[in-house]
Amino acid sequence: MFYKLKRFLIGKPLQSNELHDQKLNNLKALAILSSDALSSVAYGPEQILLVLATISVLAFWYSIPIAIGVLVLLAVLILSYRQIIYAYPSGGGAYMVAKENLGTNYGLIAGGSLLVDYILTVAVSVSAGTDAITSAFPVLHPYTVHIAILLVALITLLNLRGLTESASILAYPVYLFVLALVVVIIVGIYQILTGHAPTTAHTSIGTPVMGISFFLLLKAFSSGCSALTGVEAISNAIPNFKEPAPKNAAFTLTCMGIILAVLFSGIVFLAYWYGIAPSGKETVMSQLSESIFGREFMYYFVQATTALILVLAANTGFSAFPLLAYNLAKDKYMPRAFTARGDRLGYSNGIITLGMASIFLIIIFKGKTESLIPLYAVGVFIPFALSQTGMIFKWIRTKPKGWGWRFLVNLLGALICYLILAIFFVTKFGQVWLSLIFVPVVVLIFHQIHRHYVAVAEQLRIDDSVKVMSIAKKGNLVIIPVSGITTVVEKSLLYAKSISEDAVAVYIGYSHESIEKMKKDWEEWETGVQLITVYSPYRGVIKPLGDFLEAMREKADQSSSSMTVIMPQFVTKKWWHRLLHNQSGLLIIAYLLKVKNVHITIVPYQLKK
Amino acid sequence: MFYKLKRFLIGKPLQSNELHDQKLNNLKALAILSSDALSSVAYGPEQILLVLATISVLAFWYSIPIAIGVLVLLAVLILSYRQIIYAYPSGGGAYMVAKENLGTNYGLIAGGSLLVDYILTVAVSVSAGTDAITSAFPVLHPYTVHIAILLVALITLLNLRGLTESASILAYPVYLFVLALVVVIIVGIYQILTGHAPTTAHTSIGTPVMGISFFLLLKAFSSGCSALTGVEAISNAIPNFKEPAPKNAAFTLTCMGIILAVLFSGIVFLAYWYGIAPSGKETVMSQLSESIFGREFMYYFVQATTALILVLAANTGFSAFPLLAYNLAKDKYMPRAFTARGDRLGYSNGIITLGMASIFLIIIFKGKTESLIPLYAVGVFIPFALSQTGMIFKWIRTKPKGWGWRFLVNLLGALICYLILAIFFVTKFGQVWLSLIFVPVVVLIFHQIHRHYVAVAEQLRIDDSVKVMSIAKKGNLVIIPVSGITTVVEKSLLYAKSISEDAVAVYIGYSHESIEKMKKDWEEWETGVQLITVYSPYRGVIKPLGDFLEAMREKADQSSSSMTVIMPQFVTKKWWHRLLHNQSGLLIIAYLLKVKNVHITIVPYQLKK
Repeated sequence: MFYKLKRFLIGKPLQSNELHDQKLNNLKALAILSSDALSSVAYGPEQILLVLATISVLAFWYSIPIAIGVLVLLAVLILSYRQIIYAYPSGGGAYMVAKENLGTNYGLIAGGSLLVDYILTVAVSVSAGTDAITSAFPVLHPYTVHIAILLVALITLLNLRGLTESASILAYPVYLFVLALVVVIIVGIYQILTGHAPTTAHTSIGTPVMGISFFLLLKAFSSGCSALTGVEAISNAIPNFKEPAPKNAAFTLTCMGIILAVLFSGIVFLAYWYGIAPSGKETVMSQLSESIFGREFMYYFVQATTALILVLAANTGFSAFPLLAYNLAKDKYMPRAFTARGDRLGYSNGIITLGMASIFLIIIFKGKTESLIPLYAVGVFIPFALSQTGMIFKWIRTKPKGWGWRFLVNLLGALICYLILAIFFVTKFGQVWLSLIFVPVVVLIFHQIHRHYVAVAEQLRIDDSVKVMSIAKKGNLVIIPVSGITTVVEKSLLYAKSISEDAVAVYIGYSHESIEKMKKDWEEWETGVQLITVYSPYRGVIKPLGDFLEAMREKADQSSSSMTVIMPQFVTKKWWHRLLHNQSGLLIIAYLLKVKNVHITIVPYQLKK
Repeated sequence: MFYKLKRFLIGKPLQSNELHDQKLNNLKALAILSSDALSSVAYGPEQILLVLATISVLAFWYSIPIAIGVLVLLAVLILSYRQIIYAYPSGGGAYMVAKENLGTNYGLIAGGSLLVDYILTVAVSVSAGTDAITSAFPVLHPYTVHIAILLVALITLLNLRGLTESASILAYPVYLFVLALVVVIIVGIYQILTGHAPTTAHTSIGTPVMGISFFLLLKAFSSGCSALTGVEAISNAIPNFKEPAPKNAAFTLTCMGIILAVLFSGIVFLAYWYGIAPSGKETVMSQLSESIFGREFMYYFVQATTALILVLAANTGFSAFPLLAYNLAKDKYMPRAFTARGDRLGYSNGIITLGMASIFLIIIFKGKTESLIPLYAVGVFIPFALSQTGMIFKWIRTKPKGWGWRFLVNLLGALICYLILAIFFVTKFGQVWLSLIFVPVVVLIFHQIHRHYVAVAEQLRIDDSVKVMSIAKKGNLVIIPVSGITTVVEKSLLYAKSISEDAVAVYIGYSHESIEKMKKDWEEWETGVQLITVYSPYRGVIKPLGDFLEAMREKADQSSSSMTVIMPQFVTKKWWHRLLHNQSGLLIIAYLLKVKNVHITIVPYQLKK
């Protein structure tokens, strides 16, 4: 039943050697890995204008130089990540780069930030997309949280089906969004050139503005940098590309950078030219496309694809999170379960964990996750900064041919990233202080997990000097708890005789009468196995059995035997039949697991009715 | 931690031979077993007046003849249950009587009705008591459900501590309530005799009333019979009495009957004389004591003890439910767990089940359980009627000396009970139809459980002709699934060698490379145990292992060996460490339990860190 449902939802299982079929070609990879970065065009320009609007409409021209700053940073980041892709072709991104060049702890800081960040990405993007949907259909408004959860569940399912198939579905909306924005930009510029656009809606560049400060411009710049979130996704997912993977990934990254640059600068320029001012009621994107097209087909097309890509941006998290979790788990910093490939060859545990964590966030914040955006941006720039720094150290250490130029690219990138982080913490401390707590906590958890795995590995290492073959066969003292004279006990006794010469039955009685009766019945049965009875005045089983085992241990130690307790276990035909049998057997097994040097043999008794 | 909390809440465990100390003396038994019956005086008279009020205030005088009818029925029921107590001194009440004289199905109908009824008693009484509390302190009103749940939890806890101790606590409020009502009646009659009471507030008995019908009077009579709920409790709890239990129980029952008769007739008479009319805002009891005392101390005393006894009426359910469940479980109609005595010698599973079921009802009905009262009354009169009928058959069958008179008592009782049931179904079908569904369903469940236990008992019965001693020792093929070369595998191999000459290790690999590597490593280890490798293209373990076991079974069957699978199981130091190890071991054990003739031996490996 469960199995059939699973097959229906995620498709038939794939063999391990079908793995290469699941690799992405560049066109699909661009769609699947860029939706997060490209979707930020929908809110990045608005973030800049929001800060400038605190001064005056006259200050809006500053969005042009600020956008140029963001483009420079974008270029530096793209160049830098191209270098990272070639240097670390097995993926892992910021985690790998920081770990190898700066040390484990910096790697874990980068990895921990990113993990939390992907969860935030999913929650924030899906909530934003849902808001767009419920704005279009106000009747759905009371169901915001339900819709958001449904969308996350849907994306989780698509990812469990496997990368290629989900990419096919996800490619269309991403390209439609790009198409929509390209049309907006072309038509907008055409109108400007043909004089159909307003010429007086904007102040000219260089107009002096009262009250503007360098600090404010930096704040606007850092807000605009939220358009750069998602740029790192491709460098984490190199193993998903077709061979030659690094070359394909680098090419895809460059394409994404160019598209992002064109869309971002186009939207910023048109918003400036058309004099769009941010408003609480309508997004800048919406106002801009309304100015250009009016409320016609193209306006709704832009709005629809924007809503769609915001939801799909969540998918970037689903591509990157499981791979990062895999890398951390491989290094024993996360539970080993994250290294297992599921039926459809995706790292299903990572996919499911991400889906559940983001649904949890959506429920807690009741779908209003906007307040998480600054936290999310900080979580992105921490690993950006660390990977740039890591690359700087790498160039200094290895000094390959022509490293000076590469060193400068990363140095510039690192400085800008640290600056943006500093601005975030200074200007938005109230919204980002939480990262000062959760990043150290996550790193601490990584270390705890690592310590446990290392300790276990040490305990599991065999001593080469002892050969199993040479150890003498030991005796085995078998203990059979019995509660009456039944076929189950008979079966247990027969099995005990087949594994040992030395078996003892033990009966725990709640009254002296029941003990006397059992003794008599046992004698009449003539099993050849000795019965020992124990009186339990408090009607418990575990305590008297434990005491009895301790007493038997001495006997076993004298003959250097191992000890085995035989536990019959009913296996019922129907699930509810289980309620009709005391589950004390399971409690006893749970107790015996903790007793030193005792083996537990379960003799299943399959009930026929 | 859990253990300490348990000790604190329910006290230290008692030895089985301390059981006789827990028996009830008559004074305590009267309190603990009568609170349900006596508390019905608080609403019984009101139920009669509510029906009469649908005609006119003039009809109120009919409450006197109706009350006489109720008293006659009460007398018949008390006489009848005295006969039942002597005939069935081991308790069980309606269930036992109906089962023995009418057949199993009638017994189960009576038992099932009563079980459900006790749950309703608890929910209804506690809700009513909570309403009284929140009426007194309106600030608590939003917390009605919380308070009701808390009260049920408290009563459950008192009962888990054991009968005598809870009786000591519960005796005072019951006797205070009786005292309060006796004072009301004495002062009321004194006022009437001394002429301080109004003489014109009532119409004289026999005044003709327009529109009155026989049907309506029957309806009022059946409503008044709700005051008789709880009368059967004593006959179910005979084993809780001190010896001679039947004599003590019969005496206590008679005392309760007299008290109930005095209080009921007194309240009905005074309500008639003072001309009290039922009102939605204030109970009849409240109006009556206000008329007699004014809003002075005695008024509040009556109200407080009424509220208290309503809550404590729930306790009758807690005394009777576990005993009835014990009787049904002993006859294999309910899960065996209900026969186990807990730490304090009460049938804790019954107590806990009742507590949880009534909390469930309170939550579902949000503390407004008044609508359940008719359902509850029907649930009482079904077993009443069946036990009377059972006694009729008993007298006819056994014909003891002087049976004619006894036969007439039960015949009269049975006829009245059937009449009341008929009236209930005719006049209140909308509120009681549910019992037509749940009674058959409960009886069906009883039968299903019985069928399972009987089938199991048959399967467990040993064949006397086969002596365990004489069976030849069999071989044992041991299979050890291994995932690498570790100390855990080493331990498993050593154990395997100690129980059999015939051991095979099996490795399930996800890739051909890992299989080749394992083969090589195993050879170098020199264990003397053969390794068989299985390739699992879909990365599953259960399916390939199952196929392998089937193949091995043929080998085992040829040498008529038993089969044992050795499963190492990590036992972690800290609970969260468990999350760091794949729990596939447990899944495999769960699978192996269902495989025929395979024994599972768990080799616990206690991790040191």
